[in-house]
Amino acid sequence: MTDLSNLAQDRDLEGLKQWLSDKGAFDIAGELTRIDLEDRAVVFRLLSKDRALAVFEALDPVHQQELMASLRESNVRELLEEMDPDDRARLLDEMPAVVAKRLLEGLSPDERKLTSILLGYPENSTGRIMSPEYIRLRASMTVEDALTTVRRSGPKAETIYTLPVTDDELCLTGVVSLRDLVLADPEELVGNIMTREVYSARADEDQERPARLMQETGLLALPVTDTERRLVGVLTIDDAMEVLEAEDTEDILRGGGSEPLGRPYLSASTLYLARTRATWLLILILTATLTVNVLQYFEDALEAAVTLSLFIPLLMGMGGNVGSQSATIVVRAMAVGEVRPADFAKVVLRELRVGVLLGLMVGLLAFIPVVFLFGMGIGQVISLSLVSICTIAALSGSILPLLAKRVGVDPAVVSAPIITTLVDATGLLIYFLIAKAVLGL
Amino acid sequence: MTDLSNLAQDRDLEGLKQWLSDKGAFDIAGELTRIDLEDRAVVFRLLSKDRALAVFEALDPVHQQELMASLRESNVRELLEEMDPDDRARLLDEMPAVVAKRLLEGLSPDERKLTSILLGYPENSTGRIMSPEYIRLRASMTVEDALTTVRRSGPKAETIYTLPVTDDELCLTGVVSLRDLVLADPEELVGNIMTREVYSARADEDQERPARLMQETGLLALPVTDTERRLVGVLTIDDAMEVLEAEDTEDILRGGGSEPLGRPYLSASTLYLARTRATWLLILILTATLTVNVLQYFEDALEAAVTLSLFIPLLMGMGGNVGSQSATIVVRAMAVGEVRPADFAKVVLRELRVGVLLGLMVGLLAFIPVVFLFGMGIGQVISLSLVSICTIAALSGSILPLLAKRVGVDPAVVSAPIITTLVDATGLLIYFLIAKAVLGL
Repeated sequence: MTDLSNLAQDRDLEGLKQWLSDKGAFDIAGELTRIDLEDRAVVFRLLSKDRALAVFEALDPVHQQELMASLRESNVRELLEEMDPDDRARLLDEMPAVVAKRLLEGLSPDERKLTSILLGYPENSTGRIMSPEYIRLRASMTVEDALTTVRRSGPKAETIYTLPVTDDELCLTGVVSLRDLVLADPEELVGNIMTREVYSARADEDQERPARLMQETGLLALPVTDTERRLVGVLTIDDAMEVLEAEDTEDILRGGGSEPLGRPYLSASTLYLARTRATWLLILILTATLTVNVLQYFEDALEAAVTLSLFIPLLMGMGGNVGSQSATIVVRAMAVGEVRPADFAKVVLRELRVGVLLGLMVGLLAFIPVVFLFGMGIGQVISLSLVSICTIAALSGSILPLLAKRVGVDPAVVSAPIITTLVDATGLLIYFLIAKAVLGL
Repeated sequence: MTDLSNLAQDRDLEGLKQWLSDKGAFDIAGELTRIDLEDRAVVFRLLSKDRALAVFEALDPVHQQELMASLRESNVRELLEEMDPDDRARLLDEMPAVVAKRLLEGLSPDERKLTSILLGYPENSTGRIMSPEYIRLRASMTVEDALTTVRRSGPKAETIYTLPVTDDELCLTGVVSLRDLVLADPEELVGNIMTREVYSARADEDQERPARLMQETGLLALPVTDTERRLVGVLTIDDAMEVLEAEDTEDILRGGGSEPLGRPYLSASTLYLARTRATWLLILILTATLTVNVLQYFEDALEAAVTLSLFIPLLMGMGGNVGSQSATIVVRAMAVGEVRPADFAKVVLRELRVGVLLGLMVGLLAFIPVVFLFGMGIGQVISLSLVSICTIAALSGSILPLLAKRVGVDPAVVSAPIITTLVDATGLLIYFLIAKAVLGL
């Protein structure tokens, strides 16, 4: 780990070259982000041109920017020119507009055009991350012709494993894989070996659907078309995987009550980290004042039986946990496509049953010890409250994310913390209503 | 949606054929799981042999089993024989041992042997999901020879895009991609165009590391070797993506306080769903009794100032939310490899600062309204408690998952709910200690 850091600080060029020689681009990139900013350029400049590009492409846009700041203008221009258009678009996208514009102007006309096409699509759309450099075949070509086309245009294209087939109007009519071409008779027509039921993406649609589709189907690349089914690019699996990692991270962090960081954890400042978390905390503390109001309303009951207050955290905790379980399970099942809008009634019914079952379980479990320690009355109140709170928690935990999805909001936004806080207030209300009824306060 | 269901119930064979004709295998599989069990075989039998296999492979093992139960023995045997060995191994793995044994015996000797090899590796190891049907090249071959080998052995292999190169002892010496072969001069030697710094996986290692590596590097296949670096298989990207989806789902559900379901949500029974959640709830309710003890200990303070109890849910909620944010962020950063064991001190320091900052924010925010409504004393107690609780929550939320990782436990196990419950008890203790000191109770 500290190897590289020491070598770089000592400016031990021989040692550095030795260290670099047997590492993969991805490993080098990983270590590079862990050493001092000023040492990174020293190490980076020792790499051959090809490997430097591979290492650069393996870095996160945040780290790419940091590194670019300490490289010479000419090196930067060269790196940008050689990058894949979609990776380049992503990097430029994250830079200040003035810098991005200047860098874009430094590119060759061809590369500039490719990048501008991608940057023209809306944010988070498939068009932004597709590769505009693809190889297009025609159904009337022979396999041999097709292979010749692949050999001629291959070096520029991002993938040559999935080859879209189009008609004269550039409309997508099928797909053939390099595998099928290589294994087929050279005289065969492409039209006879291509697949006609083709999954494709629309350039203006959100990235998540095509990415999930690729994960489910195991396809290595997906043709991307415009609104008139004309081919405009190809989405490759590596970009789809990045989308999924980002989407899953977003869901996970929202589920934990925080906004996505948008940059690697270790390169985010304390203030930046606090900011991604503050919004949710503020919403939550405002919602939580509801609990103060509910308790205030029952202050006389609390004065009459202080024992009741002993169980507040336990009951709130249980409600929060069951609600958070339901919300998490339902949000995830929707994210991976197991649950669809049409399944809503089924899901809510299921969670209702699970909530009652879990409530009965913990309610029965708590009954004997509570009766033994605090008497029959409190025992009844606690057990009844546990059953009701678990049921309501499971219901809210499933209904709220489903409703969010219906109205077009990311279900992960109605996350565990939000549900916990809402269930807290409702749970207190139920608790004290039951207490008043059972204990006659 | 209900189209297929209606067609199947009416046994409208022509309508069904029409419906099936323009759908992809993945879509058909998705709809199949949503219609009645007895109708599925009716629809399935209408598919041509190739498409039936594709649809079958697109199903989850749970749904594969359900479908197999309603197919004829000979159809089942045929399907199994044609499946990829790794998919077959996964399916057999989930069946009762007696059934799996019988089905395994029905396979041809070749396919049986391939499957047995995979089933011989430990659960969750890379060996279980690799493909044992790969194409192996030698460095001394010409590109032309290599392409001939690919054409000869290609139809059987799961992937022909990544071709491992080995020496005479079968040891991995490099990798060449089909892309490079197709684009290279036919006279060139494989040894001259292959990549020597090869990422690979060990058959006995856990699946997650190679899968994450493939996600980070964008590699389509990874050679798998035994402990002596001899090639035994190839891990393909589609299987790696399935591993990652399962790992992320596991982390997400654990983060929500539930165990992974291990089967699609809609095909799990209520009892089964309750069981995956009950264990954590029981652990949590036992931990939550700590809060009852703490409150009991301060019962006299509570009697003296009932107002204190009004803020219990709010303070617990805040602590829980901050702790859950920290735990979620840290667990995710470790899962995707952004944070490594060597970064522990940095992470804890960072979370400490974030916790103090967030605590000061909510503490200051709460001060004025609380002083206004409940007086100076309570205002001071609440604000001081918020700062302390947020700090402790951020610390526990980061330290506990890091410690879990150190001792080799899945960090996601020390999840938000566990931390919330622990912070609840500690928070109450702090709250009442501050209250006693400030209010002189």
